[in-house]
Amino acid sequence: MTPVQYLKKTEKKRLSELFTFLSFPSVSAKSEHKKDLVACAQWLTDHLKGIGFKTRLVKTKGHPLVYAEYKAGKNLPTIMYYGHYDVQPPEPMELWKSNPFKAEIRGGAIYARGACDDKGQTFAHIKGLEAVLKTEGKLPVNVKMLIEGEEESHSVNLPAFIRKEKKKLDADIVVVSDTAQFSKDLPAVTFGLRGIAVAELFVYGPTRDVHSGTFGGAIANPINILCQMVGQLHDKNGHITIPGFYSGVKPVSKWLKSQYKKLPNREKAFLKELNIPAMHGEKGFSTYERMWDRPTLDCNGIKGGYQGEGAKTIIPSFASCKITMRLVPGQDPNDICNKLEKHLKKLAPKSVRIKVDKGGGAKGVVVPADGPWLEAAGRAIEKGFGKKPVFMKEGGSIPIVVDFKEVLGLDTLLIGFGQNDDNIHSPNERFRVTDFERGCRTATYLPFELASVKG
Amino acid sequence: MTPVQYLKKTEKKRLSELFTFLSFPSVSAKSEHKKDLVACAQWLTDHLKGIGFKTRLVKTKGHPLVYAEYKAGKNLPTIMYYGHYDVQPPEPMELWKSNPFKAEIRGGAIYARGACDDKGQTFAHIKGLEAVLKTEGKLPVNVKMLIEGEEESHSVNLPAFIRKEKKKLDADIVVVSDTAQFSKDLPAVTFGLRGIAVAELFVYGPTRDVHSGTFGGAIANPINILCQMVGQLHDKNGHITIPGFYSGVKPVSKWLKSQYKKLPNREKAFLKELNIPAMHGEKGFSTYERMWDRPTLDCNGIKGGYQGEGAKTIIPSFASCKITMRLVPGQDPNDICNKLEKHLKKLAPKSVRIKVDKGGGAKGVVVPADGPWLEAAGRAIEKGFGKKPVFMKEGGSIPIVVDFKEVLGLDTLLIGFGQNDDNIHSPNERFRVTDFERGCRTATYLPFELASVKG
Repeated sequence: MTPVQYLKKTEKKRLSELFTFLSFPSVSAKSEHKKDLVACAQWLTDHLKGIGFKTRLVKTKGHPLVYAEYKAGKNLPTIMYYGHYDVQPPEPMELWKSNPFKAEIRGGAIYARGACDDKGQTFAHIKGLEAVLKTEGKLPVNVKMLIEGEEESHSVNLPAFIRKEKKKLDADIVVVSDTAQFSKDLPAVTFGLRGIAVAELFVYGPTRDVHSGTFGGAIANPINILCQMVGQLHDKNGHITIPGFYSGVKPVSKWLKSQYKKLPNREKAFLKELNIPAMHGEKGFSTYERMWDRPTLDCNGIKGGYQGEGAKTIIPSFASCKITMRLVPGQDPNDICNKLEKHLKKLAPKSVRIKVDKGGGAKGVVVPADGPWLEAAGRAIEKGFGKKPVFMKEGGSIPIVVDFKEVLGLDTLLIGFGQNDDNIHSPNERFRVTDFERGCRTATYLPFELASVKG
Repeated sequence: MTPVQYLKKTEKKRLSELFTFLSFPSVSAKSEHKKDLVACAQWLTDHLKGIGFKTRLVKTKGHPLVYAEYKAGKNLPTIMYYGHYDVQPPEPMELWKSNPFKAEIRGGAIYARGACDDKGQTFAHIKGLEAVLKTEGKLPVNVKMLIEGEEESHSVNLPAFIRKEKKKLDADIVVVSDTAQFSKDLPAVTFGLRGIAVAELFVYGPTRDVHSGTFGGAIANPINILCQMVGQLHDKNGHITIPGFYSGVKPVSKWLKSQYKKLPNREKAFLKELNIPAMHGEKGFSTYERMWDRPTLDCNGIKGGYQGEGAKTIIPSFASCKITMRLVPGQDPNDICNKLEKHLKKLAPKSVRIKVDKGGGAKGVVVPADGPWLEAAGRAIEKGFGKKPVFMKEGGSIPIVVDFKEVLGLDTLLIGFGQNDDNIHSPNERFRVTDFERGCRTATYLPFELASVKG
């Protein structure tokens, strides 16, 4: 029996195991789910042990880390797989068509929080490796597997672990499936990621909400001021106005521009899929450049004052706004947060008090876009998907990839099994069953292709 | 026994009755309280009937209206009292030190939602009139009393009633206690009110929240856009930028400026009371002018995206902002709402869809600042408070006062018993017991002083 035949034979069981994995509400951002994360990590550890890995449930200051190892032989290459078992908050709940933590299949897709990001994709590798082990009796490579519980909370504790266990984590290449295919039926290897910097702005006015008739016009309104401040962070051309924000940002190279021109244009598809009247972004850059090569500043949440039914005629006592900035190589998240804070302090009038919480973040990273590892990954994908992959970048951030490079000296292969319309970070997150299957198949070929690089 | 002696004798009972009145959660903005408003109106109707009024519980399309009448004689003047039994939403609940609908006295003040605005002040008139009736056997004036249940919801249905019952509501003067004293121990008669215009802005982006890494920089972020739009509604000098917003607004007259200079400066007191670092407003105008004679644009609430703990890296599907504009005589609320809508549509980029809900409002109004009625009210206040009142304006709105003038041809005497720090529209709303007592006393003198005008 080949690994792929094994996959076919075990399809039902595999899906049922994935559904169990998806049933844990492992929302790392919410402290109320602390126990659910521990339970999920424990289940995963047990599952990996059952397959034949040596496992370890690593305690951290936050949520635990699952570590698994397989030793094939000293002279064989070592592949480090990285994934995460934590998920984004499911809210707004009312928009989900089914329970986010009770997976169900509708129209050929698995619907659940984490179905794609990143439980489903991580599980595809686990099941691919299991198929090889069960049919060949061994793996052609050494495997180290790191599955963390804090990726959606900026991987707070993983870098310390990597630094501490630096020697133990020695490997040849890292494999991460936490990105997307280029589009339906067009798989991709991703060679660049944006970084991220996280901040929150608080604007404080009167100690209590006050009557907007009595005081309106005579004191600062924190919402008005917040809007004025945030509204000034972009100029008319969509450039970010924070002094020094772009220092270190390299121009988009001619080579990149020519690569992007080869990719199918997706603007029309985006307009339709997102139901938006027009694209929007920085003047002078194409959509792919805006998504992959230019830094951003997005408000992720804003609040202040009365949000209930009807009107409440108040000047609120405060307003706040969550901000994330996507960074590109050459930008440092702490430096960017400091520049944002300095700029906001300059923008704030004397009539309010402000506070900027700086959450740090991660640098952007670029993997060499050629080389034998990338080619080997391409071959595995071609076998698993039945189609040659394209080479692209990704606008999102996988902060830990920077640490793999900077601390361990390792490049990362980014192999996305999911798709851009899989609603990750949104209600009704999904993972098409065919993508899960193609992912599992790719995962059976990948160790052999990677083994051939060093062979 | 004089009316004032009667008040003294019945103090305990009076407070206990007021506490009952305050116990109804008559929040007109929230449909869940519909029954509580009916119950409150019924209690009030019964109470007025018990005192000796002919009463009527008037059904409207919204919350009911309490109407009460007392006939003293055809040749005697007729006073129309207006008040409201509905209250502002109590939120945020966690900031209340006691149950907003279970009144309690702390440090000489009654704490409850509506204690001052406007149940307490309305009740002072009812109890003053009761004192006169119980001691003199009759009132020296005819009384018509209108106590509505929708003042905090823009008096949606009252104007229709006034138009319909125009003849029946014939009177000589209106008395309203829904403003404040100038300051502690300095009572006031108010001769101007600002109007109000209500709107809500919605900015729609992608049909669902999407990943800020995947799409950040390439599509419009509704929060960023909302901030840019709202942030542009004021210029650097605090002037409102809506074209035509100020047409019709008269300059502040020399006489007014000289009146305001006579009033104690309260800026330092405001800074301390509200714990704000500086006043904030339109360049070229004093604080009193900004509060009473200049129109405003305040955001009362804003929302969009993720508001929970931690970060959620999304571009939200929409953002919205509640806006109220305080108007001055010469501005029409519908016209102003239309101008705001037009301006916002111009400010919105093509990459988003927007909607502006226009809630209408009320014009500003000025009562002649001299004349026998105003003087009579001043005498009653002087007797009730033991101090000569000052003449001032009020920045808030009592929309129905405009209808009294435009439909019934009646001027309104605005006699505030409360104070600016009574936390109306805020948590821990209060009404000092001494103010309630001075209000009740003033209310016993007022009918006699007003009777003398026409006598």
